[in-house]
Amino acid sequence: MKRMLVAISIIIVLSLVSIPQAGAQMDTLFSWNDGPVKQRITRFVERITQENGPDYVPPAECIAIFDSDGTLWPERPLPMELYFVIQRIRQLAPKHPRWRKIPPFKVLFEKSPKALTKLSKQDIERLMLTAYAGMTQEDFRREVQNWMATWQHPQLKVGVRGLYYEPMRDLLDYLRGNGFKTFIVTGGSTDFVRALSEPLYGVPIDQVVGTEIGLRYKVTGGKSFVVRDPKVASFENGPLKPVNIERHIGGRPLIAVGNGKSDIETLAYTSDRHGTSLCIVISHDDASREFEYRADEVLKPAQERGWLIVSIKRDWKLIFPR
Amino acid sequence: MKRMLVAISIIIVLSLVSIPQAGAQMDTLFSWNDGPVKQRITRFVERITQENGPDYVPPAECIAIFDSDGTLWPERPLPMELYFVIQRIRQLAPKHPRWRKIPPFKVLFEKSPKALTKLSKQDIERLMLTAYAGMTQEDFRREVQNWMATWQHPQLKVGVRGLYYEPMRDLLDYLRGNGFKTFIVTGGSTDFVRALSEPLYGVPIDQVVGTEIGLRYKVTGGKSFVVRDPKVASFENGPLKPVNIERHIGGRPLIAVGNGKSDIETLAYTSDRHGTSLCIVISHDDASREFEYRADEVLKPAQERGWLIVSIKRDWKLIFPR
Repeated sequence: MKRMLVAISIIIVLSLVSIPQAGAQMDTLFSWNDGPVKQRITRFVERITQENGPDYVPPAECIAIFDSDGTLWPERPLPMELYFVIQRIRQLAPKHPRWRKIPPFKVLFEKSPKALTKLSKQDIERLMLTAYAGMTQEDFRREVQNWMATWQHPQLKVGVRGLYYEPMRDLLDYLRGNGFKTFIVTGGSTDFVRALSEPLYGVPIDQVVGTEIGLRYKVTGGKSFVVRDPKVASFENGPLKPVNIERHIGGRPLIAVGNGKSDIETLAYTSDRHGTSLCIVISHDDASREFEYRADEVLKPAQERGWLIVSIKRDWKLIFPR
Repeated sequence: MKRMLVAISIIIVLSLVSIPQAGAQMDTLFSWNDGPVKQRITRFVERITQENGPDYVPPAECIAIFDSDGTLWPERPLPMELYFVIQRIRQLAPKHPRWRKIPPFKVLFEKSPKALTKLSKQDIERLMLTAYAGMTQEDFRREVQNWMATWQHPQLKVGVRGLYYEPMRDLLDYLRGNGFKTFIVTGGSTDFVRALSEPLYGVPIDQVVGTEIGLRYKVTGGKSFVVRDPKVASFENGPLKPVNIERHIGGRPLIAVGNGKSDIETLAYTSDRHGTSLCIVISHDDASREFEYRADEVLKPAQERGWLIVSIKRDWKLIFPR
């Protein structure tokens, strides 16, 4: 009886104390279908966490970066941030009656939502800067929170909290469980994505790197603020993404996940890391459950360089959280 | 006997399992003298970690930022980075014989080290940019590592690893032990400080925010690099510090520590946080153990606004690691 009690107490102790493990933690990619794609991810993580193995990577270098639009959540028919910008412009409109007559603003007041998909990059940038100009950082964050509380995706009929890709959340959790530090590296504006990075993806706000809006220090009524200027300080796209990765993160990632043309340089920068790396490209090929659009610009280098192509149709058990 | 074993096993279990605690962790500010200054720090941390208390701050907002030169390590007679720049310029000099004749370069080849302290901000910037131009990020990091391995402070006769302020390392550890995320926000160039943030201060490289050198994505021989351009992208100083805090960290800090004029806006931005905050100013008043120089520009607003002034002479038991 004594022995049994001692044994039980040892078992209790061992099960409760977290012991640093050699090798990867349990596979928690619940929303991924079994198969070679999922296997390549788990085998990679097993290799780089095996302390005496040839591909071991020290924890400080276990950096995983994720693009946002089209990688962590849908970008069709419009990038998520644009819905917020549109709502904000409409709110400001009563004070700016001219907007109803001049482009790019007037399209926001038309009946047909199709017109919105025709906006050029320059149009979107102009709308965005107008929508954000002059706000303090605190006001901006509050506005995004307010929008998140009520907005619904026009096709998918769910709010922001039901819109992220569940398999990506699983992958983020799995990587963090294996000692990775996870970052979002996005073309979206940094502070917009920050408003939801923690609740949706478990990514702390300082680990979000995005397009930078001009900011300015200002003292009003004896109190200091940082306010938003109507200009883009650094548009996070293509070759500027690796530059901003160096600025914010300070080295090449070990894992990069993207889905479009603007991620090619980031994937190459990861792929050219000294030693091993894993580059993942999400292919939107599931018209019935999400949207179907081939991004050949990134699928071609992915095939040539052996980056892992994830087919949403084949590899994801489910897409959105249930 | 049975009961005793059960009791022992419960005690073992409880002592090994880490239980989230209400209130502050043990005071580990070993190298601080007891007194009102140390007490104000520990009482502040106790207040904001007390879960049901009126000043409780949720963990995501427990952000502490530290200036580098003069706050985490000495800035006299020259800022630390300048020693690295000088060594690098001297290494490059054989290929640039003109440097021996033209300012600001020629001063580096003079016998008297006093001349170096007369360099203007513009001179230093020019030397820095020349020293770093064209290097890949990987080459730059290797050069800093090489310099760190051999360099010694001319007055204090110790290498980089013996030069940081031990009470600041204690404070960083103490805050992290209480759930804070710690950042270095420095006028020094980001990548220079990153080379030593983890070994000296336990601060991960992505939590270092500094002066940004122009960076460019470049493909050479089929391989991608990020190389350094001879220009400053953003000189991290004064009112630009709160801007870069918003860019990199994404909100007002709860604790800010600085020592000079260039920290005033950062301290004000922290002090103007909605709710409680703690601003700390290090006063260099110990000629015998370090250097003595009064920074009245920051001591004046510190007194007016009730920021905590730390006297090195009175409040620090020791200055450098033993």
